[in-house]
Amino acid sequence: MKNFHYNVPTEIFFGKGAIANLSHIGRYGKRVLLVYGKDSIKKMGLYDKVVRILEQLDMDFFELSGVDPNPRIESVRQGSVLCKKHGVDVVLAVGGGSVIDCAKVIAAATVYEGDAWELVLDSSKIVDALPVVAILTLAATGSEMNGSAVITNVETREKIGTYSTLLKPKFSIMDPEHTFTVSRAMTAAGVADIMSHTFENYFTPVKGAYVQARICESLLKTCIHYGPIALDEPTNYEARANLMWAGTLAINGICSLGQQTGWSVHPLQHQLGAYYDITHGVGLAILTPPWMRYVLSDETVGKFVEYGVNVWGLDANGDPFDIANRAIDQTEAFFLSLGLPMTLSEVGIDSRYLEEMAKNCERRTLQGFVPLTYRDSMAIYKAVL
Amino acid sequence: MKNFHYNVPTEIFFGKGAIANLSHIGRYGKRVLLVYGKDSIKKMGLYDKVVRILEQLDMDFFELSGVDPNPRIESVRQGSVLCKKHGVDVVLAVGGGSVIDCAKVIAAATVYEGDAWELVLDSSKIVDALPVVAILTLAATGSEMNGSAVITNVETREKIGTYSTLLKPKFSIMDPEHTFTVSRAMTAAGVADIMSHTFENYFTPVKGAYVQARICESLLKTCIHYGPIALDEPTNYEARANLMWAGTLAINGICSLGQQTGWSVHPLQHQLGAYYDITHGVGLAILTPPWMRYVLSDETVGKFVEYGVNVWGLDANGDPFDIANRAIDQTEAFFLSLGLPMTLSEVGIDSRYLEEMAKNCERRTLQGFVPLTYRDSMAIYKAVL
Repeated sequence: MKNFHYNVPTEIFFGKGAIANLSHIGRYGKRVLLVYGKDSIKKMGLYDKVVRILEQLDMDFFELSGVDPNPRIESVRQGSVLCKKHGVDVVLAVGGGSVIDCAKVIAAATVYEGDAWELVLDSSKIVDALPVVAILTLAATGSEMNGSAVITNVETREKIGTYSTLLKPKFSIMDPEHTFTVSRAMTAAGVADIMSHTFENYFTPVKGAYVQARICESLLKTCIHYGPIALDEPTNYEARANLMWAGTLAINGICSLGQQTGWSVHPLQHQLGAYYDITHGVGLAILTPPWMRYVLSDETVGKFVEYGVNVWGLDANGDPFDIANRAIDQTEAFFLSLGLPMTLSEVGIDSRYLEEMAKNCERRTLQGFVPLTYRDSMAIYKAVL
Repeated sequence: MKNFHYNVPTEIFFGKGAIANLSHIGRYGKRVLLVYGKDSIKKMGLYDKVVRILEQLDMDFFELSGVDPNPRIESVRQGSVLCKKHGVDVVLAVGGGSVIDCAKVIAAATVYEGDAWELVLDSSKIVDALPVVAILTLAATGSEMNGSAVITNVETREKIGTYSTLLKPKFSIMDPEHTFTVSRAMTAAGVADIMSHTFENYFTPVKGAYVQARICESLLKTCIHYGPIALDEPTNYEARANLMWAGTLAINGICSLGQQTGWSVHPLQHQLGAYYDITHGVGLAILTPPWMRYVLSDETVGKFVEYGVNVWGLDANGDPFDIANRAIDQTEAFFLSLGLPMTLSEVGIDSRYLEEMAKNCERRTLQGFVPLTYRDSMAIYKAVL
């Protein structure tokens, strides 16, 4: 097990009616920037509830709406201009990971002299930030309880993650009922995202982080159990609740600290996101099985056997490569059963930018479970063309 | 899944050499009360390291040593007198759960006008506390990352837990090497304590907290895997590290929130602790199998099957009661294999106070997995006399 520093001060108010706890936002000042995406929070009545609570608290609020999935640096710049102009004290994100990520970088950019994109390119430049509060409406990215934010620069075709402990939300409100209206496709993509975060932590060259590995398996089992239920019964509270909390735990440090390594599938997918603006979880689902098959080797087969036996309940007595391949096949079959595409062509990606994307991956060198070079990235992309 | 509020701001510095992070204590002031037990922290050289860092920080420190296992209210009173007298800013606990629990209540008692025991009897009276910092030397109670403290009043024969979010350590230093010198018997008792915390969370009448249940199983598997290794190889870093972190996670909210229920075996054991001053984990180990057998019924058998299949790897195809009983037998056999006593007479407890203890249990009504009355408590005690 590696040394680690666990520092997650974010408070979580979880469950039905948790929105009442939004009143705690009053601790952080009187002027709020309300950040959200499209119309969905209005359709589900959440917008009105938020506004009512802010009004009851006699808070002034300003709005940044229309934040895109794969949130753009333009939205961040726009938000920070609003914050500076109105002397905003606290940034309130109402939405999924994209909205929360955008709100986080707005919070940092507001108190930064230079351009917001610098904070994405170099996280060490984040030395201060407004407080962030989140109301989560999608089980997926885990942004509600960590310091990460991924921002896209369409102009430069870059989708890059930044991080600061200062970006961790002060508190997050997680009501599973707020995810009842999430579409079938987005629910499936969210499940793939949660599983991918867990895989990035689980498939590690670090030895001896046994408890973390077992917890990763817990989250994977939760996704496998409740993913299909949430698709079939979108208002099944237990399914939505378990997926929502699993999404948080997958990437708040509980799974990674002590066995942390570089990530592999996320950087490969960030290239797809930057070039094609596809749904993040969909890209991860497409790339996961070919990545698994590509890195399977004499060195790594043991970990895949562990995965197959502990997560998929495969018989431990058998040829290790057979068990490993069956585990990978089951992973792919599971994503397929959720209705997720399994090839790049299904999401409109052809070979045009493959070399460029693979080169970009190599520039940041993927030192993960198995280090990946340009050649490796190309091979993985091509396997699912 | 029940609604929950997760709020654990304690920072953890985990791993070899983590003691260097004690320097962060400077954030909380200049005057420290150093709380510890007997000589062990001096023998292992930890005391000298702590003193060196406090001196480098130019901090004044005062000492309360000799804190007992099952820490006494007298120690708390003594500590708070020292804090008031010397204008202490921060309480530093160096030891296991007893020392940390004692330090927590000292921190609250220092800023309380009345007698410290009132804070144990009525946690709502804890409205302020000095900051607490912990250096953990025993994997067991999880006190390093929660707001609980259990204090014994020998005079009134009471061992009672109190709780406040204000008692959560600001940060805790967890170096598995600090547990290398823990004796075989105390290591075993610690494992039983961690497993018991997990059981208290796992055996719950609350439905649908699937992810929490799987995480509980992760911790149980970790104890079962590494407990024997730590006994055989006391300096096995991975064994000590996994047990240490499992001990924290067993009772910091990750296992309980969303499925929280009243506890059963701990209140039964607190009576033993108050009347006989036995080692906490030993009492828990003795009482766990008879409690399991006692509450096994048509209503609860499903949970025991889940436990047997998921933790002990028992074949799910079979008579449920057979699986359940085998799971309980394996639990007992595991504790025995760690060298733990399995009867009360082995730890010098006879029938003398049984009725009194069972009555005390009932006074606080055990509304746990299965509610327990006086009769039930008596039956459980008698089963292991």
